Amino acid sequence: VVRYRLILSYNGAAYAGWQRQENALTVQQVVEEALADLLERPVRVLAAGRTDAGVHARGQSVHLDLPRPFPETGLVFGTNHRLPADIRVLAAERMDPPFHAMRSARGKVYAYRLIHGRVLSPLDAPYAVAVEPTLDLGAMQAAAARLPGRHDFAAFTYSGGAYASTRRRIFTAGWSRQGGELRFTLVGEGFLHGMVRALVGTLLEVGRGRRTPEEMAELLTGGYGREAAGPTAPARGLVLERVLYPPPWEGPQ
Amino acid sequence: VVRYRLILSYNGAAYAGWQRQENALTVQQVVEEALADLLERPVRVLAAGRTDAGVHARGQSVHLDLPRPFPETGLVFGTNHRLPADIRVLAAERMDPPFHAMRSARGKVYAYRLIHGRVLSPLDAPYAVAVEPTLDLGAMQAAAARLPGRHDFAAFTYSGGAYASTRRRIFTAGWSRQGGELRFTLVGEGFLHGMVRALVGTLLEVGRGRRTPEEMAELLTGGYGREAAGPTAPARGLVLERVLYPPPWEGPQ
Repeated sequence: VVRYRLILSYNGAAYAGWQRQENALTVQQVVEEALADLLERPVRVLAAGRTDAGVHARGQSVHLDLPRPFPETGLVFGTNHRLPADIRVLAAERMDPPFHAMRSARGKVYAYRLIHGRVLSPLDAPYAVAVEPTLDLGAMQAAAARLPGRHDFAAFTYSGGAYASTRRRIFTAGWSRQGGELRFTLVGEGFLHGMVRALVGTLLEVGRGRRTPEEMAELLTGGYGREAAGPTAPARGLVLERVLYPPPWEGPQ
Repeated sequence: VVRYRLILSYNGAAYAGWQRQENALTVQQVVEEALADLLERPVRVLAAGRTDAGVHARGQSVHLDLPRPFPETGLVFGTNHRLPADIRVLAAERMDPPFHAMRSARGKVYAYRLIHGRVLSPLDAPYAVAVEPTLDLGAMQAAAARLPGRHDFAAFTYSGGAYASTRRRIFTAGWSRQGGELRFTLVGEGFLHGMVRALVGTLLEVGRGRRTPEEMAELLTGGYGREAAGPTAPARGLVLERVLYPPPWEGPQ
């Protein structure tokens, strides 16, 4: 078996998330169908992780197994030729086992964009959420600073019961500001379903003075249900920026 | 008569440019129809300048005249409610004559985005052009540095004959780089049809070593036809960022 890693980027607006579903169009289905058409055989791809409905990706990482080698350039351009414009293969690279898109991953980088204003430019609106300029960024930064480490994120997912453990390790978390744009970057080992957007929704409550950074930290100590944290921020603001692999598998970018 | 300035932003992909046409959908037509529906009367809007088919705007500036005052908030939200998602009114402000969206303008700011890579992310592709990472940015910067001042831009428009003069004044021109993204920002008093994209196409030839910065400067001395300069860069990379007005008319942002 010959294994390839593909780096995918997609605009998630038109899709019910990454993972195949019976009654909704997903990115996985569209990618697998394009690859099957190119390779003239059924193809299954395995991603580093799911993204939810409407969430974007700049660097989703997947692998597929082929019975014999196929040119990497052909995997990029042949697949793109068969994909709609909102999904692209950015790179392909032969990565034989033991590399595994999901099991080899050491972490993921997510970014969430907020923009000051009542009305967003149509150039930004599909990828960001409008917020009031009065947000207390210092408080949001202080709350984000409580996230690195290993914590219980049960309060930040509706699917807690589906996991053996709701504890996850966060490497870095922080806000950056450029002009009227606030960007939250979160790097972690693994994420629960809806966790990044629930964290953003809760950080926004901190920015609005409705919670303190200390209350955010308290939510990470476990024993809280989803209702204890803030609302889930809209999917369109979230981008899976990249998947982290250990050497020699780091990949492009 | 009561005059209002609207700041408009649009994704130009679906439109045959700003200006009304008989047989193609334009931004002006869509905006005027939305305003007419809101105000229950025919409305004409006058823009600071046209944008070509496919060109985007973050800060197009237009004015309209009404027989009596209308709430500014209503102009923003009432119009947006009637506009498709790819056009938005960002702001409305009463600006009685002598303010005039076109005649009062002192300049315009344009930006053009290039991104290194063979395949662009679908999150960037509608707004940027893919270029090779081997471009000589130093040479492109040197060529851009020849643009400020008053020059004859006849070599940079197919419509030279339509103008009384093809001389225009450029205030600033330069490239900035952030990661794999190159951004050309051009501020000028006025622009000929297709001029910004012809300049970008010519600067790209400089970046590829096919022209020198001195040859770029020579093209600005007049007496050259459109064929003497480089090709017209794609519309999707270009954004009209804002229109400049003198005090007290500067406006938002």
